[in-house]
Amino acid sequence: MYNEMFGQMKKMLGQLDKWLETAQKHAETKSFDPGVFATLRLAPDQLPFTRQVQITCDTAKSAAARLTGKEAPKQEDNEKTIEELRARVASVITYLGTFTAKDFENAAKATVTQPRWEGKTMTGADYFMEHALPNFFFHITHCYAILRHNGVGLGKRDYLGALTQTAPKT
Amino acid sequence: MYNEMFGQMKKMLGQLDKWLETAQKHAETKSFDPGVFATLRLAPDQLPFTRQVQITCDTAKSAAARLTGKEAPKQEDNEKTIEELRARVASVITYLGTFTAKDFENAAKATVTQPRWEGKTMTGADYFMEHALPNFFFHITHCYAILRHNGVGLGKRDYLGALTQTAPKT
Repeated sequence: MYNEMFGQMKKMLGQLDKWLETAQKHAETKSFDPGVFATLRLAPDQLPFTRQVQITCDTAKSAAARLTGKEAPKQEDNEKTIEELRARVASVITYLGTFTAKDFENAAKATVTQPRWEGKTMTGADYFMEHALPNFFFHITHCYAILRHNGVGLGKRDYLGALTQTAPKT
Repeated sequence: MYNEMFGQMKKMLGQLDKWLETAQKHAETKSFDPGVFATLRLAPDQLPFTRQVQITCDTAKSAAARLTGKEAPKQEDNEKTIEELRARVASVITYLGTFTAKDFENAAKATVTQPRWEGKTMTGADYFMEHALPNFFFHITHCYAILRHNGVGLGKRDYLGALTQTAPKT
């Protein structure tokens, strides 16, 4: 199940890459600097677009690492442009692609902690379900919503991506 | 796994109820009609707040029904007030509470379709992972983001709710 869930997160990161590309083209068409998106936010006390993209990436990356006892590659959080954000997204897609179902065999029973939890722990199962998965969707949806709020032409199909559907029998 | 995932969706609907309560109190404190929230949206071609709440509810309700071969109770989509939206959320929490792990035993292999798919089908596993789960988080996060964008005081803890954590050994 974990492998399938990370497969879905990987797919959605691919959608995020397309939104970034669409945002870039939107700015070019409207003749404004695509770098403007970096600091846009939905509320003054919410995180700006660039941080939403970075945290989306980190949530997926860290969850895969924590659930499998691996060390996630560190990243500098120094992206300034849409191209740099796309490269960050691509790096996490590549990283998630290195995991197999076997890597997640003991994920549910892993013990997970974070510095900010002050010694508290969660089981891998609880951490993934209650923390990593909701956070991933929270931040990726904020990426989408910030772009939509600022006029970038995206729709639900851009969010979901292609669906694995079977055509009706003729 | 499905039972745990729906448990998480049920938990998050409980959080949504708290956001609605907070929005109501915010409006009362600021002396404006809480009904104003109903039509707020993040983009003119996105759905308004009330529809985001209704679709969050329907996504969870319909997914549980479709994966278990049950008929979901119909709802009229006629909520006008925050109280009515909270009742809608409560009804879905109650509905999800009627399912057990046993109900989802064959969920992965279920055949799912929707009128708008024009005869195409998805397996229960693909439908849940690629469609129901991302849509649920999309709409519930939009509920949150619309409120945050309009000044309601919510934070990440209100989004995630209480975490199942174990205290450090002393």
